[in-house]
Amino acid sequence: MTDRDHTPDLRRQTRLGFDEAVFCAHKRTEQLVRIMDHAHRDQRSLLLTRLSPDQLAALPDSYRDSIDYDSLSRTGICGAHQMPGATPRIALVSAGTSDSAVAAEAVRTLQYYGEACHEIHDVGVAGIWRLLDRIEEIQPLPVVLAFAGMDAALPSVVAGLVPGVVIAVPVSTGYGVAAGGHAALNATLASCAPGLVVVNIDNGYGAACAALRTVKALDKVGAKP
Amino acid sequence: MTDRDHTPDLRRQTRLGFDEAVFCAHKRTEQLVRIMDHAHRDQRSLLLTRLSPDQLAALPDSYRDSIDYDSLSRTGICGAHQMPGATPRIALVSAGTSDSAVAAEAVRTLQYYGEACHEIHDVGVAGIWRLLDRIEEIQPLPVVLAFAGMDAALPSVVAGLVPGVVIAVPVSTGYGVAAGGHAALNATLASCAPGLVVVNIDNGYGAACAALRTVKALDKVGAKP
Amino acid sequence: MTDRDHTPDLRRQTRLGFDEAVFCAHKRTEQLVRIMDHAHRDQRSLLLTRLSPDQLAALPDSYRDSIDYDSLSRTGICGAHQMPGATPRIALVSAGTSDSAVAAEAVRTLQYYGEACHEIHDVGVAGIWRLLDRIEEIQPLPVVLAFAGMDAALPSVVAGLVPGVVIAVPVSTGYGVAAGGHAALNATLASCAPGLVVVNIDNGYGAACAALRTVKALDKVGAKP
Amino acid sequence: MTDRDHTPDLRRQTRLGFDEAVFCAHKRTEQLVRIMDHAHRDQRSLLLTRLSPDQLAALPDSYRDSIDYDSLSRTGICGAHQMPGATPRIALVSAGTSDSAVAAEAVRTLQYYGEACHEIHDVGVAGIWRLLDRIEEIQPLPVVLAFAGMDAALPSVVAGLVPGVVIAVPVSTGYGVAAGGHAALNATLASCAPGLVVVNIDNGYGAACAALRTVKALDKVGAKP
Amino acid sequence: MTDRDHTPDLRRQTRLGFDEAVFCAHKRTEQLVRIMDHAHRDQRSLLLTRLSPDQLAALPDSYRDSIDYDSLSRTGICGAHQMPGATPRIALVSAGTSDSAVAAEAVRTLQYYGEACHEIHDVGVAGIWRLLDRIEEIQPLPVVLAFAGMDAALPSVVAGLVPGVVIAVPVSTGYGVAAGGHAALNATLASCAPGLVVVNIDNGYGAACAALRTVKALDKVGAKP
Amino acid sequence: MTDRDHTPDLRRQTRLGFDEAVFCAHKRTEQLVRIMDHAHRDQRSLLLTRLSPDQLAALPDSYRDSIDYDSLSRTGICGAHQMPGATPRIALVSAGTSDSAVAAEAVRTLQYYGEACHEIHDVGVAGIWRLLDRIEEIQPLPVVLAFAGMDAALPSVVAGLVPGVVIAVPVSTGYGVAAGGHAALNATLASCAPGLVVVNIDNGYGAACAALRTVKALDKVGAKP
Amino acid sequence: MTDRDHTPDLRRQTRLGFDEAVFCAHKRTEQLVRIMDHAHRDQRSLLLTRLSPDQLAALPDSYRDSIDYDSLSRTGICGAHQMPGATPRIALVSAGTSDSAVAAEAVRTLQYYGEACHEIHDVGVAGIWRLLDRIEEIQPLPVVLAFAGMDAALPSVVAGLVPGVVIAVPVSTGYGVAAGGHAALNATLASCAPGLVVVNIDNGYGAACAALRTVKALDKVGAKP
Amino acid sequence: MTDRDHTPDLRRQTRLGFDEAVFCAHKRTEQLVRIMDHAHRDQRSLLLTRLSPDQLAALPDSYRDSIDYDSLSRTGICGAHQMPGATPRIALVSAGTSDSAVAAEAVRTLQYYGEACHEIHDVGVAGIWRLLDRIEEIQPLPVVLAFAGMDAALPSVVAGLVPGVVIAVPVSTGYGVAAGGHAALNATLASCAPGLVVVNIDNGYGAACAALRTVKALDKVGAKP
Repeated sequence: MTDRDHTPDLRRQTRLGFDEAVFCAHKRTEQLVRIMDHAHRDQRSLLLTRLSPDQLAALPDSYRDSIDYDSLSRTGICGAHQMPGATPRIALVSAGTSDSAVAAEAVRTLQYYGEACHEIHDVGVAGIWRLLDRIEEIQPLPVVLAFAGMDAALPSVVAGLVPGVVIAVPVSTGYGVAAGGHAALNATLASCAPGLVVVNIDNGYGAACAALRTVKALDKVGAKP
Repeated sequence: MTDRDHTPDLRRQTRLGFDEAVFCAHKRTEQLVRIMDHAHRDQRSLLLTRLSPDQLAALPDSYRDSIDYDSLSRTGICGAHQMPGATPRIALVSAGTSDSAVAAEAVRTLQYYGEACHEIHDVGVAGIWRLLDRIEEIQPLPVVLAFAGMDAALPSVVAGLVPGVVIAVPVSTGYGVAAGGHAALNATLASCAPGLVVVNIDNGYGAACAALRTVKALDKVGAKP
Repeated sequence: MTDRDHTPDLRRQTRLGFDEAVFCAHKRTEQLVRIMDHAHRDQRSLLLTRLSPDQLAALPDSYRDSIDYDSLSRTGICGAHQMPGATPRIALVSAGTSDSAVAAEAVRTLQYYGEACHEIHDVGVAGIWRLLDRIEEIQPLPVVLAFAGMDAALPSVVAGLVPGVVIAVPVSTGYGVAAGGHAALNATLASCAPGLVVVNIDNGYGAACAALRTVKALDKVGAKP
Repeated sequence: MTDRDHTPDLRRQTRLGFDEAVFCAHKRTEQLVRIMDHAHRDQRSLLLTRLSPDQLAALPDSYRDSIDYDSLSRTGICGAHQMPGATPRIALVSAGTSDSAVAAEAVRTLQYYGEACHEIHDVGVAGIWRLLDRIEEIQPLPVVLAFAGMDAALPSVVAGLVPGVVIAVPVSTGYGVAAGGHAALNATLASCAPGLVVVNIDNGYGAACAALRTVKALDKVGAKP
Repeated sequence: MTDRDHTPDLRRQTRLGFDEAVFCAHKRTEQLVRIMDHAHRDQRSLLLTRLSPDQLAALPDSYRDSIDYDSLSRTGICGAHQMPGATPRIALVSAGTSDSAVAAEAVRTLQYYGEACHEIHDVGVAGIWRLLDRIEEIQPLPVVLAFAGMDAALPSVVAGLVPGVVIAVPVSTGYGVAAGGHAALNATLASCAPGLVVVNIDNGYGAACAALRTVKALDKVGAKP
Repeated sequence: MTDRDHTPDLRRQTRLGFDEAVFCAHKRTEQLVRIMDHAHRDQRSLLLTRLSPDQLAALPDSYRDSIDYDSLSRTGICGAHQMPGATPRIALVSAGTSDSAVAAEAVRTLQYYGEACHEIHDVGVAGIWRLLDRIEEIQPLPVVLAFAGMDAALPSVVAGLVPGVVIAVPVSTGYGVAAGGHAALNATLASCAPGLVVVNIDNGYGAACAALRTVKALDKVGAKP
Repeated sequence: MTDRDHTPDLRRQTRLGFDEAVFCAHKRTEQLVRIMDHAHRDQRSLLLTRLSPDQLAALPDSYRDSIDYDSLSRTGICGAHQMPGATPRIALVSAGTSDSAVAAEAVRTLQYYGEACHEIHDVGVAGIWRLLDRIEEIQPLPVVLAFAGMDAALPSVVAGLVPGVVIAVPVSTGYGVAAGGHAALNATLASCAPGLVVVNIDNGYGAACAALRTVKALDKVGAKP
Repeated sequence: MTDRDHTPDLRRQTRLGFDEAVFCAHKRTEQLVRIMDHAHRDQRSLLLTRLSPDQLAALPDSYRDSIDYDSLSRTGICGAHQMPGATPRIALVSAGTSDSAVAAEAVRTLQYYGEACHEIHDVGVAGIWRLLDRIEEIQPLPVVLAFAGMDAALPSVVAGLVPGVVIAVPVSTGYGVAAGGHAALNATLASCAPGLVVVNIDNGYGAACAALRTVKALDKVGAKP
C-alpha cells in the first residue's frame, strides 16, 4: 500500500494566504514522520495541532527536538514563523479556566501566523461585572474570539456590547447536558445577539483562521494607496 | 367503556396547599365537559391550562360563558379565586416579546392562587443594559421567574445577580437549533450560575407552582409566633 | 398586564453600528402594532424579518401600506434606508434554487443597511463546474456568504478556494436526514476548510449582520488617514 | 501567556449570600495551585467540587494536607466553615445506593455553607412502601432534594406528596437508554407533579445552592421583627 | 403497476393464534378498498387500526357502513368477532385522561379478539393514593397494560406492586421534553421495577397483542388434562 | 434580484450518463415555470420529483397539461423518454403497502430513464413466508431495491439471500420511534448482511439512480466485443 | 453520614414472587460489603448483576469466596438457589456470538430463580436458514427471549413465526449507528411483528424477570384444581 | 452452557458468492479460538475484521502465527486467498490521512476476495485541485469507494463527476459535531449528487462487499457468450 500517503495542499498559501496545518489526532507515528519528512525536505514550517504527548514521545528524537511543543494547547511548531505585530487586533475572551486549552490553541495558531492577541480570561456571566469591568479593552478591536463551555452565555453578551466580528468557540467542558459542548454550541448558534458567528466545538484553530481571514482583509484595505 | 373517566385528585389542596389544575391539551370536548360537571357539582373553582380557542368554542354555551378566558396564555378560570396580595413577592423577567404567552400562563396561575407578581419584559442579553437598569427592582424579591427562548442566557445572568430562588422557564420560540426550546433548556440546565433551577420548556404553570411552594414556605415561617 | 411590553434596544446603533431588527415570528398583531407605534413616534426606520403574509394582512391598513414587503424573504422595510454602494464587497453564493428564500433575507438585510452584494446562485457541488466557472468573481471580495441545504458541501469548497471571510448559512431544505437543516449545519461546522464560520440554520439575517460587522471594520481601516 | 489566569468572583458572597466554589474537573494542577494561592493569600475558605483523587494527589503536600477531602463526593474543603444548625430544614431523598455520590456532593456543599440536612436513602419506587413509610419525616420540611437515576420516578412521587420546594437531581447511573442520565432528566422535567424543579444531571452542588437560596429567603422572613 | 398490491398474511392465524390487523395510517383509499375487497371475498373479519375519520369518510358507502367505528381509538371492526369472556384476565391502568385514545385502541383490539379487560383510569403518580386505593383489583390478574405519557412513572410503580406481566405503553401526550412520548418511553425502558416490558409509543394495538400472547399461553396450560 | 435564478447542470448527461431531475419541494411557482421555460426552449425532457398536487395546479395550463403526472409518486414527466427494455434487470421489493409512494418514485424514475423493473410488494418479515415464496424471482437479478419503514428488517433478509447489489430505501412510515424513518435508516445501515448499501429516507429517486449507475456499468461490459 | 445506607426491599418476594437482585455497577466496595453483611445476617441468598472482576477482587476474601461468579455474564450468586426444572419453558435465541454476555445474564438470572431455558445461538438473519432450521424447537414454548444487536431483525422474524410471548433484548454491540444499541432498540420497538415486547438495551436480567412473571402466571393456572 | 456457540453461515458462499467474515470486536478469546478451530477442521480460509492487537496477542501461538495481520486495518487473514486481478475495477478515494485505517479495511477485504483496487488518498475538498488533478483516473472504473470523515463533502463531489457506482464510507474521525462520524454519515445520505449510496460509519468491510456484489454482476455479464 505504498501510495496510501498524504497529498499536501501546497497551493493553500497562495489561495488563502496561510498554509496548511497538520491535524494530528487519529494519525499514526509513521504518518506524522512522513509529513515531517516532506516538510523538512521542502524547508517548510509546520503547525501541528491536536498533537498528544504520547504522539510527541513516539517521534524520532531529532523530529521531537525540532518541535516547539505547548502541552496546554497540544500544539507543536516546527521551523521559523512570523513575529506577531506589536499591537493586537484580535481580542480573546474566555468564560472560565476550563476553557484555557482551547483558547491556547487559538493563541498558538495566531502566533504561528504572526498575529498578536489581547487575552482576557475567566469572565463568565455568573459574575458579569468581570466582563463589564474590561469591556472597553475589547470594544475597539475589529475581531473578538469568545470561548465558553457550559451554557456559553458569554459570546452572546459580548456580541451585544462590541461592534467587531465576534467568533464564538463553544468548549466541551461540562457534565450532564453540557457534556461534549453541544449545549454551548447550540446556545451560541441560537444567540439573540446579531451577527455572532460560530465554529465547531473546541475548534480554537478554526477560530484563529477565521480571525486571520478578517485581519488579512483589513490589511488589503490598509495597503491601498 | 363507562369507567374510562377521570379521577380528580381532590386531596391535593390538603397535601400540597393548592388544588389540581386541568391540562386541556389532548382532551376531547366530552372529557372537558365531564370535568366541568364534576367541579360544578362540587362547587369547586377550576384553572384550565392549554385551553385552545377551538376547545373553548366547542364547549356548551353555559360552560363557555362561565370561563374567564385569556387568549394570550390560553388559560381559563372558572369560579371564585383568591385576591392577589398588594406587594408582590415574585418577580417575572422575560427576554423578549416572543416569551409573553408562556409568561402569561405563569401570571394567570399565580393570580388564580392569589399571588401578585412584578413583571419586567423584553430585557434579553443582546442589550444587557436593559436588565442592569432594572436589576434593583428584582434583587429584594425572594423568587424570580426568568423566561427565555433562543440561547436563554437571561436566566444565568439574573441568577448571577440576585440572591433569591431563580426558576428558569425555557421557551420554545426560535428556529434552527433553537426550535422547540431544547437549546434554551440545555443552556439553563448547564448554567454556570449557582442554584438556578429549571422547569420543562414552556411550562409557565409549573414555574408558578414552584414559586407558590416557595412563598407558602415563607408564609409558614412568617406565621410563626 | 399593562407593562407586558417591549423594551427596544435603542442604544444598539451606537454600540454595534446598526439598529435592532424586529423578529416577527411568534409575535401577535397587537405586539407588532405596538412596536410600529413606537418606531413611528420616534421616526425610526424598521427592518421586519420572518413577517408572514398572514401577519402582514392582519396589520391596520396604514401600517401595512407603509411596509415595503418581499414575499420570498418574508421581510418588510418601513421608512427610509441607506442606498447600497456601487461596488459590492460581499459575495453571496447559493447551492440551489431551494435556498433562495434564506438568501433573499440576507440580501434584504444588507440592502436595508446600505450594502450591495454580488449574487451567484444554484452552483451546488453535484455539478462543481458551475462554481469553478465563476470562482474568480468571488475571490477578490473580502466577505462571502455561502447558502446550502442538504449536505452543504458548497461552503467547504468555497472556503477552500477564496481567502475572504466565508460565512456558511445552512438551509433547512431537504427530507430524511436533511430535514430541518441539521445535516447541513453539522457539515459546515465540521468543515475541513480552515476558518469557515457558521450561523444558525436559515439565519440569513444573522449572516448579513456578520458581514456588516466585517465591512464596518474595513471602513474604519479605510477611513484612517 | 501570563494573564491566562482566573478572575475570582469575589463579590459573589455580597450579591448571592454564598461565595464561589471551585469546579475542579478539566483543571490542571498549576491552575488549582494558583487558585489555592489566591485563597490562601486572602485567607478565604474554599469549596472544591469534582476534585479527583488524581488531582488531589498531584497537589503540593502542604496544599493537599490542608484539604478535608471526601472521596465519595469528590469534594474538598479548605479552611474554616460554618457549623450546621441543629434542626435540618432540608430533606434529602435518594432512590438507590448508586445515587450516593451525587447526594454526598449536595450534603458536603450544604455542610460547607452551614446547613444540616435530613437524609433518607434507597427508597426508589420499585418498592414504594419504603418511601411511604417515611414520608411524614419529609412533609414538614420547606425544601426537599430528590436524587434518582434510571427512570427517576421518585422525585415525581415525592412532589405529589409534600408541599415544600422539591428539587430533582437526575443521576447519570444506568445503562442503555438510562446511560448518562438523560432519561432521568427528561422524566423529572416532564413530571406530572406540579412545581417540581430540576437541575443538571449529577449536579448535587447546584441543587444544594438552590436549597440555600430558599432557606436564606426563609431566614430573611424569620428575621423580620 | 398492476402488481403494486398487498400480500395478506393469511397464515398468521395458524402461526400466531390471531389474524392480521390492517394498519391504515399512510394508506390511500384505493388501497383500503382493495384490502376490504379481499376480506369480503374470503368472508374474513377485519380489525382496522389508525383509521382516520377522513379515511373512513372517503370509503364507498357500503364499505363505510359495514364498519363498526370508534372515533376515540380510531379503530374499525368489520364482520363478526368473538365475544369477550365474562371474567377479565387483563387489567388496563392509565395515568391520565390524555392517555384514553391509546388505551381505547388496546381495549378495542382485545374486544375484537374476544378478551375482556378491567379498566382503571386517571391514577397517575402525582396523586399516588388514587392507584394505591385500587391496587388490589389489579394484583390478582396475570396481565396488566399500563398507559402513561409525560414522565411515565405509573408503569414502574405498578410493576413494583403486582406480580403479573406488566406491559408499559408510553403515550405521546405532553410538550417540551415530553413531546412525542420519548421521555415516557425512556422512563419505562429504564424502569427500576424488575421485568417491566415496553412497546412502541402509542402502540395500544401491540400491547393488546402481547397480552393476547400471554393469555393464550395460559389457555394452553389450563386446557391440559 | 434578476439573477437569483437556476443554473442547470447541462453537462450531467455527459458526465454521469443521465440528465438532471428537478426536485420540486420548496420551489415556488415562478421558479418551476422558469425551469420549464428553459427546458422547453432547449427541447429537453424533464423528470419532476416531489411535485405536489398544489404545485401542479398552480402551473399555467399549457405547462400543466404537458406533464404526465402520477399522484402516488408525486412525479411528473415532460417530453419524450426512453422505452423500458423487455427484460427487467432491477428487482423492487417492498415490506408493506405503506411503502408504495416511495417505491413508485423509483419505478417512475427508472421508467423515465428506460429501465423496466420487477416489482414484489407487501412481503415484510412479520410473515416471512411471503418473501421466501418469491425469492427465486429476485435471485438472478443484478440489482435489488428494497423498501421498508418501521423496523426495516426486509432489506437485511434480502441481502442475506441474494448475490446482487441490494440498495435499501428506508421509508418514513410509522409512529413513535419509527416516525420519520430514522429507525428504519439505522437498521439498514447497521445491517448484519454484508454489502447492503443505503440511501436517504424516502429517496426513491436516489435509489433508482444508484440502480442506473449499476446497469450502465453492466451495459459497458456487455458492449465490449 | 451514617444513614447513607441501603433499604432492601424485603417484601418484594411476597409482592412479586421473586426477591430483589443487587445491581452492582456504580457501587463501591463498602456498599457491596454492607449489602452482603445484611444478607448474610438474614440468611438470604443474593443475585449480584453487573459485578465487574475488579469489584469482585476488591471484596474481602470470605465474601469473594462465597460467590459463584460467572465472568461472561458478570453475575454472582451467593447462597442456595432453586434447581431449574427438567423441561424448559423458556427459549433463548441470539443473533450472534457478540450477544452472548447479555444472553448469559438472562440464563444466570433464570437459573437463580429455578427456571431452565432452551438456548439457540448465532442464528441472525444474514443467514436466515439457521433460524428456520430450528424454529420448531421454539414454537411450542410459551416464552421466547430474543437477543440481537446491530439491526436487531431477529426478534421481529421470531415474533412473526411463533405464538408465545416474545421479549426482545437489544444488545449494544456494533459500531457507527449501531453503537450503544439504540438502532437495535428502535428496530425492536418499531417491529412490524404484532405483540413483540422490549426491555432496555443489554437488560438480560430484566428480560429474565419478565419471563419469570409469565411462567409464574402459568404456574398459577396449572395449579388450579 | 455448552451450546452457547456459533453457527457459521456455511452456505453464504453459494448464496452470495463470498464466504462469511468474522467480526471480532466484542468477541472473547475462547470464542475466537472456537471459530478458528472450526475453520481449521474444515480447511476453510478466514477473514478476521476488527481484530485488536490485544485480541491477537491473547490467541494461542499457533493460531496467532497462522494469521497474516495488518495493524492499520486491524484485519487478519488465515489460509489461502485468491490473487487480485491485474487491472483494478474498483477505485478507492479518501479525503485525508485520518481515513486510512477504514480505507485499509476495505483494501484488505477486497484483497482477500481477489479484487485489486486503485487507491488515491488525501484529496479532500479543502484543496479541491487535488481531486480534480486525478479525476480522470477514476472516471472509467465501474465502482468507486469514497472515504471521508468530518463534513464528508468528498463523496458528493466524486459522485457528481463520475458515472460509476459510488459508495460513500463515512469515517468517525473528527471532534465536536464530527465526533463519531454522524455528521459525515448524514452529509453523504443527504448528498445532492444523484445515486450516491452509503454504508455504516467506518464500515470499510461492508463497502468492499458492496463493491464485490457489483463486480460479480459485471463478471456474469462478461461471462455470457
